[in-house]
Amino acid sequence: MSPNPTQYAFGMIGLGTMGRNLLLNMADHGFAVAGYDKNQKQVDLLGQEGQGKPVQGFTDPAAFVHSIKTPRAIMMLVPAGAIVDSVIAEMLPLLSPGDILIDGGNSHFTDTERRAKDLESKGFHFFGMGVSGGEEGARFGPSMMPGGDAEAYKTMQPVFEAIAAKVDGAPCVAYMGPGAAGHFVKMVHNGIEYGLMELIAETYGLLKNGLEMDNAAIGQVFAGWNEGRLQSFLLDITKDIFAFDAPGTDHLLLDDIKDEARAKGTGKWTSQEAMNLQAPLPTVDTAVSMRDLSKYKELRGQLAQLYPTADASLAVDRAAFLASLEQAFYFSMIMAYAQGMHMLAKASEEYKYELDLATIAKIWRGGCIIRSTFLNDIFNAFQNDKGLAHLLLDGAVQQLVLAAAPGVRTVVAAAVATGLAVPAYTSALGYFDAFRTARLPSNLIQAQRDYFGAHTYELIGKEGVFHTQWTGLRDKVETSAGTHANQTPATPPVPSTKQSNTEPANPKL
Amino acid sequence: MSPNPTQYAFGMIGLGTMGRNLLLNMADHGFAVAGYDKNQKQVDLLGQEGQGKPVQGFTDPAAFVHSIKTPRAIMMLVPAGAIVDSVIAEMLPLLSPGDILIDGGNSHFTDTERRAKDLESKGFHFFGMGVSGGEEGARFGPSMMPGGDAEAYKTMQPVFEAIAAKVDGAPCVAYMGPGAAGHFVKMVHNGIEYGLMELIAETYGLLKNGLEMDNAAIGQVFAGWNEGRLQSFLLDITKDIFAFDAPGTDHLLLDDIKDEARAKGTGKWTSQEAMNLQAPLPTVDTAVSMRDLSKYKELRGQLAQLYPTADASLAVDRAAFLASLEQAFYFSMIMAYAQGMHMLAKASEEYKYELDLATIAKIWRGGCIIRSTFLNDIFNAFQNDKGLAHLLLDGAVQQLVLAAAPGVRTVVAAAVATGLAVPAYTSALGYFDAFRTARLPSNLIQAQRDYFGAHTYELIGKEGVFHTQWTGLRDKVETSAGTHANQTPATPPVPSTKQSNTEPANPKL
Repeated sequence: MSPNPTQYAFGMIGLGTMGRNLLLNMADHGFAVAGYDKNQKQVDLLGQEGQGKPVQGFTDPAAFVHSIKTPRAIMMLVPAGAIVDSVIAEMLPLLSPGDILIDGGNSHFTDTERRAKDLESKGFHFFGMGVSGGEEGARFGPSMMPGGDAEAYKTMQPVFEAIAAKVDGAPCVAYMGPGAAGHFVKMVHNGIEYGLMELIAETYGLLKNGLEMDNAAIGQVFAGWNEGRLQSFLLDITKDIFAFDAPGTDHLLLDDIKDEARAKGTGKWTSQEAMNLQAPLPTVDTAVSMRDLSKYKELRGQLAQLYPTADASLAVDRAAFLASLEQAFYFSMIMAYAQGMHMLAKASEEYKYELDLATIAKIWRGGCIIRSTFLNDIFNAFQNDKGLAHLLLDGAVQQLVLAAAPGVRTVVAAAVATGLAVPAYTSALGYFDAFRTARLPSNLIQAQRDYFGAHTYELIGKEGVFHTQWTGLRDKVETSAGTHANQTPATPPVPSTKQSNTEPANPKL
Repeated sequence: MSPNPTQYAFGMIGLGTMGRNLLLNMADHGFAVAGYDKNQKQVDLLGQEGQGKPVQGFTDPAAFVHSIKTPRAIMMLVPAGAIVDSVIAEMLPLLSPGDILIDGGNSHFTDTERRAKDLESKGFHFFGMGVSGGEEGARFGPSMMPGGDAEAYKTMQPVFEAIAAKVDGAPCVAYMGPGAAGHFVKMVHNGIEYGLMELIAETYGLLKNGLEMDNAAIGQVFAGWNEGRLQSFLLDITKDIFAFDAPGTDHLLLDDIKDEARAKGTGKWTSQEAMNLQAPLPTVDTAVSMRDLSKYKELRGQLAQLYPTADASLAVDRAAFLASLEQAFYFSMIMAYAQGMHMLAKASEEYKYELDLATIAKIWRGGCIIRSTFLNDIFNAFQNDKGLAHLLLDGAVQQLVLAAAPGVRTVVAAAVATGLAVPAYTSALGYFDAFRTARLPSNLIQAQRDYFGAHTYELIGKEGVFHTQWTGLRDKVETSAGTHANQTPATPPVPSTKQSNTEPANPKL
């Protein structure tokens, strides 16, 4: 059997939606590329869609590898998790030290860290890259977030810059930073995505159940918003969804779809990691828990019977309410992005990713799911002040937020009075109202923790931690023999040599 | 050196607050007990507090082990994490197969699972036990949540039942279930604890900043609530905190304490695991993110300057508002417990813990941090219906919630209008309003996910999953070469053979 000629510049493992479309995108840009999938059907589909293009599919891994010019550059686009490890194990014996292996899937950043170290020790270049934009993005212009092996990225840079989405001529791809920075940034992107989608869904609920608007009118609201400052990919596809009838009917396909949201898990990862970093991400947390809540369809039906709403309609002037709702959405959208950017800043400190938030905003402006006009405002904020500690500190953003705040208060007040669920809206408002509170009631939490657990507290204007034997104040003490009078006196603050009882960052990593 | 006589019935490793106090509790009940700590000071403190009691401390692990009757029963009460593993490694060579080792600390349930398997394979009995009640509880009557090796538990049962808190004569300890059930239940207890503490803190904020009440008046509110249906350990200690002046002053110590909440991490674990189980826990999530948010003191100060509130005071009738606030707290407290119980039900299914929710409510009525009168209502609900799928389905609870709902709406509306942060209150209300919605707007999320990611959706009344090529609707497609007209037509729903794209449970375990 004659060897395959080594003629391809790049290889793709995994010819599902994303892998196949990225490959075709590269071929369109003149790169001769090879694809590999165990599944003959996927290879056939690549062949059909790649007719007349410099692209070839393989089901034989050795033939695939040998068809690629050395030093080879190969991307994997397979489901995250154990499959990535088994693909790596399968490929390594066929590759040569110096070859580049890229994980373009939604891998968890801790797995990417592990794989990078492992492959580095074996002489391979490895980097993790987040790819956003779905099927269409992959095919015509994604946003890409590579990180890790900087030398390997430089090799791939011309290819990625060619195929990436462009905004004002600038490609939506840039080196994020060392280690798993690329996948980390992608994870946060997906968290923000969950938050924005939950806000849109709650808006739909308000329009439908609160304002009793029909689908055509609802679609017009989203279409109208998409022409203004709220312009975004998500609103754009939402307007499309409100224009698509179920075939052979005159009602929307949307109305036939079950109201039980599913998830692949990346938004959950964002929330979980934010808690490890101690970066508050309430709007993403809410979006995650709302997808989870929605799957309890039967229970919801039962609870709707037990706790009915006589009438959810809002007794408001429609035009005025819609103006408030536009403000509310803008405000809450800003909070969702702000939470994500703050998390990225904390992660950069913690993991030494050296993230440039302006660059991240810049490459998110095109190609990716969360692309929106507002990302220009975010870009400007971090470009103007490289050390900006939080998006809400930016002067221009401050003006936008102050102007929109009344709208979110109006909307939340109305929804809460009538019983319509708006948890993402309230999470955004709560985040804002809490973060701008110079003195929070959290001192009470510290006092309680010291009271029952001797966890210590800090005193204003003093160094160190302190403990008080508060229990001396109790009249009674419950015991294993019943309740008896307390005999332990309370004591004043005593400096404690205990650790300050702050959990170490990332104890589970 | 003559060997120490083997005379002790039980041993405790770790003589910090919890370990020392549990040991003294046991000694008070007539059990002869030994304690071990590397730190001579801790051993001395045990000696002082244990004078005249059948208790002895050791700094020599071998002497400690040999002083205990075989088969031995030894508990560890050391900080969770790597320290537990190193203590086990240190002790095993000194122990004999058949000995019982108990982890009474706040270990993560996955670590407990691992340790149980490991020790079992080596012939030892191991079980994890949650202990709640803080210093006072440990000393006079804790609530305990053991799980795992059932035979080992039976051996310890008389000791634990003797030292546990009692409610109506019943000890607040019971076997939770196999594996890491004990530590899991303790983790959820701590999550609920975070939620209740955040609600109390927000209440304090409303009384102080909204109603402009002074500390004495605030203390009276909490004291008054503690005499009624809101009676709880947390409200009890809160009233005490509002009566304790900083020494040598006439202001509360509370006012000198920094408003930067710390955490040991168990509430975070509860939120993270709830997301793995897909059990919505928004009030705990909010409490975790609010503790995190509070630590950004400097940033909060800056944001308070940029986004000031002219006047946070509520223009309300004080008595009427306080009545609404009592309702709001009761309502939200019920939601916090309900979320926790629902998570326990999901965990029981997932991990086959065989949890009895009535038993859990029963042992939480005394000794533990979240003990309250309302736990009797929870006990009754699950006792009356062993298969109760959710606390809110109980008829008696339904009546309480319906009656209290107007109060939480009043409070949230007022806070939101004036700019006072009440994220836990709004999380509770949002959970309620969402869960009693028979048709949520989550169908839009499913349509969007299929549109941009081909993630498929389900249709009402049909089996299987479907996909639509929605992008045919787009006028324009953004590409790497700019924007061009779309040429792909939209397609009707096509049955998809893809997996339904629901993440597997607990992919990281």
